Amino acid sequence: MEYPSKAIKSVIDELASLPGIGRKTALRLALHILKQSEEEAERLGQSIVDLRKNIKYCTECHNISDTDICNICNNPRRDTDVLCIVEDTKDVIAIESTAQFTGRYHVLGGLINPLQGIGPSQLNIESLLSRLRERPCKEIIFAFSANIEGDTTVFYLTKKLKPLGIKVSSIARGIPVGMDLEFTDEVTLARSLMNRTMISVDEG
Amino acid sequence: MEYPSKAIKSVIDELASLPGIGRKTALRLALHILKQSEEEAERLGQSIVDLRKNIKYCTECHNISDTDICNICNNPRRDTDVLCIVEDTKDVIAIESTAQFTGRYHVLGGLINPLQGIGPSQLNIESLLSRLRERPCKEIIFAFSANIEGDTTVFYLTKKLKPLGIKVSSIARGIPVGMDLEFTDEVTLARSLMNRTMISVDEG
Repeated sequence: MEYPSKAIKSVIDELASLPGIGRKTALRLALHILKQSEEEAERLGQSIVDLRKNIKYCTECHNISDTDICNICNNPRRDTDVLCIVEDTKDVIAIESTAQFTGRYHVLGGLINPLQGIGPSQLNIESLLSRLRERPCKEIIFAFSANIEGDTTVFYLTKKLKPLGIKVSSIARGIPVGMDLEFTDEVTLARSLMNRTMISVDEG
Repeated sequence: MEYPSKAIKSVIDELASLPGIGRKTALRLALHILKQSEEEAERLGQSIVDLRKNIKYCTECHNISDTDICNICNNPRRDTDVLCIVEDTKDVIAIESTAQFTGRYHVLGGLINPLQGIGPSQLNIESLLSRLRERPCKEIIFAFSANIEGDTTVFYLTKKLKPLGIKVSSIARGIPVGMDLEFTDEVTLARSLMNRTMISVDEG
């Protein structure tokens, strides 16, 4: 595709390098930006520059934070006995929005993925181990996506954590709420049969 | 949704204001930007700021351009007898990629849309008329999207152009190539029947 100006080509090159944005979408975004005021475009561009420049990470759990210790690690009402291990900030946000988890987090910053050259040393695993050695907890919950990278990371971490003698669990795999059983894939269905939950009926 | 830092919240606010980008996608984009180098993030942000600041429009056809007169208007091999009227730069790019049109363009910068408060005076219509008065052409082709705004703009412009006595046409509406007839909506099918094209068979 030939573009009528260098300025628009360079912004399309940049936007199309983002995940999920193709060149046609990038062009649509660029034309939208051109219809905005100069101030609005400046604010968008500057917020991207600032994000990368000024971002801080919690020294405890490695989540994105405005302060050295994040709001969750700093909250005395959060349970210190349970630690939830996640891949990314977006998983912390997703779990927090359920309002079901009162423990703390540890953000790995990725999952083990040999095909993409991501090994344990690139993740926040060493800091997890030293954190647990300093202040042991009672249970660790792995909350990873249900894919090979997630399973590999669970396998690796379980072996690493064994010497510490901490109870380890993983969030349940099964049929999503609202999903029809007939449309569920076989692997999920098999797992949900294997990991069935007992139903207790109160006698009345 | 609560965000762990102000820097990420402000970039999500900005990104989610773009068309087709929701807050979850914006978060994914922000996390992707955080994984890039500071230089890459700077390049992306700066290209957006520069785009809005440095953009030029062709004084002849109003298409985006690096120069005062764009490459198409400046090309002596383009046919001056046919003028194609389009809404936007992306339509010029789309038509150019067919390599079927050798005339010149006029970019309106929008379509008449009373619901969004866009009237003829906000579009490059006055400059189209004075351009045609100075250098008349033989045919005008309207190439707008097939919606109410497109049809309204065709109707308005046809009336405005009538005194100039120029032949006026619109790109064909019909069944897209590769589309099954049974899945075509009634309006399109009715139009494609009405505007059927004659088939000539060479005797041999």
